[in-house]
Amino acid sequence: MISTITMKWNGSTLELIDQRKLPHVEEYVKCQTSECVAKAIKDMIVRGAPAIGASAAFGYVLGAMENEKDLSVAKMEEVKERLANTRPTAVNLFWALKRMHSKFLEIHSQSKSAKEIVSLLNDEAEKIAREDIEVNKRMGNYGQELFPQDVTVITHCNAGALATVDYGTAVGVIHAALDHGKTVHAFVDETRPYLQGARLTAWELLKLGVDTTLICDNMAGWVMKTRKVDAIIVGADRIAANGDTANKIGTYSLASLAKKHGVKVYVAAPLSTIDVSIKNGSEIPIEERSHEEVTHVQGVKIAPDGVKVYNPAFDVTDADMIDAIITEKGVLRYPYVKSIKKLFEQK
Amino acid sequence: MISTITMKWNGSTLELIDQRKLPHVEEYVKCQTSECVAKAIKDMIVRGAPAIGASAAFGYVLGAMENEKDLSVAKMEEVKERLANTRPTAVNLFWALKRMHSKFLEIHSQSKSAKEIVSLLNDEAEKIAREDIEVNKRMGNYGQELFPQDVTVITHCNAGALATVDYGTAVGVIHAALDHGKTVHAFVDETRPYLQGARLTAWELLKLGVDTTLICDNMAGWVMKTRKVDAIIVGADRIAANGDTANKIGTYSLASLAKKHGVKVYVAAPLSTIDVSIKNGSEIPIEERSHEEVTHVQGVKIAPDGVKVYNPAFDVTDADMIDAIITEKGVLRYPYVKSIKKLFEQK
Repeated sequence: MISTITMKWNGSTLELIDQRKLPHVEEYVKCQTSECVAKAIKDMIVRGAPAIGASAAFGYVLGAMENEKDLSVAKMEEVKERLANTRPTAVNLFWALKRMHSKFLEIHSQSKSAKEIVSLLNDEAEKIAREDIEVNKRMGNYGQELFPQDVTVITHCNAGALATVDYGTAVGVIHAALDHGKTVHAFVDETRPYLQGARLTAWELLKLGVDTTLICDNMAGWVMKTRKVDAIIVGADRIAANGDTANKIGTYSLASLAKKHGVKVYVAAPLSTIDVSIKNGSEIPIEERSHEEVTHVQGVKIAPDGVKVYNPAFDVTDADMIDAIITEKGVLRYPYVKSIKKLFEQK
Repeated sequence: MISTITMKWNGSTLELIDQRKLPHVEEYVKCQTSECVAKAIKDMIVRGAPAIGASAAFGYVLGAMENEKDLSVAKMEEVKERLANTRPTAVNLFWALKRMHSKFLEIHSQSKSAKEIVSLLNDEAEKIAREDIEVNKRMGNYGQELFPQDVTVITHCNAGALATVDYGTAVGVIHAALDHGKTVHAFVDETRPYLQGARLTAWELLKLGVDTTLICDNMAGWVMKTRKVDAIIVGADRIAANGDTANKIGTYSLASLAKKHGVKVYVAAPLSTIDVSIKNGSEIPIEERSHEEVTHVQGVKIAPDGVKVYNPAFDVTDADMIDAIITEKGVLRYPYVKSIKKLFEQK
């Protein structure tokens, strides 16, 4: 049993809050098949690297249930592929599926019954989900130490409770700062094209009681120039072994502007977001999404017919632009090639 | 008689294309009073510094017609104030009104009939409008020399035919480059909150036959990092004596990113945009517009209730970030405090 705002799992149904409809409508989509979960990830009903990872784990359990009569390695590899072929950039998706599949291979070789296997897979998926919340709280505690008593941050996209099973990564750090009695002012980038900032982060921060000011993405530089901003704090979709960080499109621009204005750049991400198999950001595949996300806003057309569109969903911020990467094992500092290596050796 | 896409003037009615409805609906708003023109400027039916200037000039003529029975200096000062108290940043508005009012004071002292005065004011307003087109074409010719044979630019907001009486400032330079047989590729910033890029510039560039790619504002940095971009080219709402340039919000961020990536920053603006009465950008009043422009897109709500909003309509790009200011008298180079001074001494 898992029950958070982002997702509810009762052992056979995964309910996902439809993040496309927030903040105006709070509606859950019910999935009882792995195909349904794959579609929910692809269509961004659920989004945010850690939330995608946990959803995929539950989708994998549903895939095992669908195949209870013939629970073969081949069938479960199909399930894994179905869930993996949804979004290419966030590595937590592949990390969670790999963990579930390894568990399956391990217990499958122990000649257990299909029922027992499904039950053990269910335990593993719930463990992933519970660990995510734990990890976020630990990250929050480490991260908030970087904030002064009265802090002004700029956020981009949504790295909040909704991007995770609960509590959030970047928003988790803000949450922890509040719990430590700090005062937080947040400028929230609306984050075109999908408006996760305006729709999701503003909604979450208001609920937390943060002094929240919405801005358009192109205002961030002017805010940094004319107001006191201490830090930008963002999540991540994949971090390479050298610290290069893929995150929502616009993060690179925002971080570039932060460096110009002496504003700190903080990334909050669990170890499951770090992909030590790739050396640097140039190896991270960047998803390009549909043109309609740019030519339309919430279904309303804003551009003329026939215009070409470029719609990368992510960009990569260079490691040397990042002042700290906040993880559940502590705060990493540049050069990350060393600090990440050390962390994974300890693991 | 003036008849362009932006505005039509027949001596008693000013028709303004409703730029809030473009590109989907091409509808003209008819104004027969100075009050109507003031409202059209305030509500952004007409926008763009030079277009606002010319509209205000015609509004001033309508104001004179309204007061034909008592064409006093006091009455015309009221008209001037009504039209001036609409938008604070673009200086062309005040420049055009000052020119109209000086003309009025000059002919008013010559004991002419009200009819004659109105007729002479009409001539002056039409002259302002015709000069604007001429000036833009000259600017285009000077500006296009800065472009290589095959050029890739990023545009922000709309500094096109629609922002002027006709031809455009920044888009005028692109237009002239095409006329000189050059190939132009343009990435068009959508330009939140008002989406002048997506709605107006993309529409104009497609009509000109430019290879036009729409992007969200937060993608510009990533485009500069991963593609070959030669220059950003923008218009201006007010340029201080030292070259500091107020332009649509987001220009400062875009220019900052351009400097980081070795991309040229070009501003195209007529002399009427240069306000030599102010030393630097800190003296330029920055208009803040309604929260609804940010919390809603084309009438659709995208943010939760209760969120605060910061909505500056303009920002100021420092003179030392600008590689060239293109005017109708030639291309100015940094330090502008010298090149602008020289230009105004020649005038």
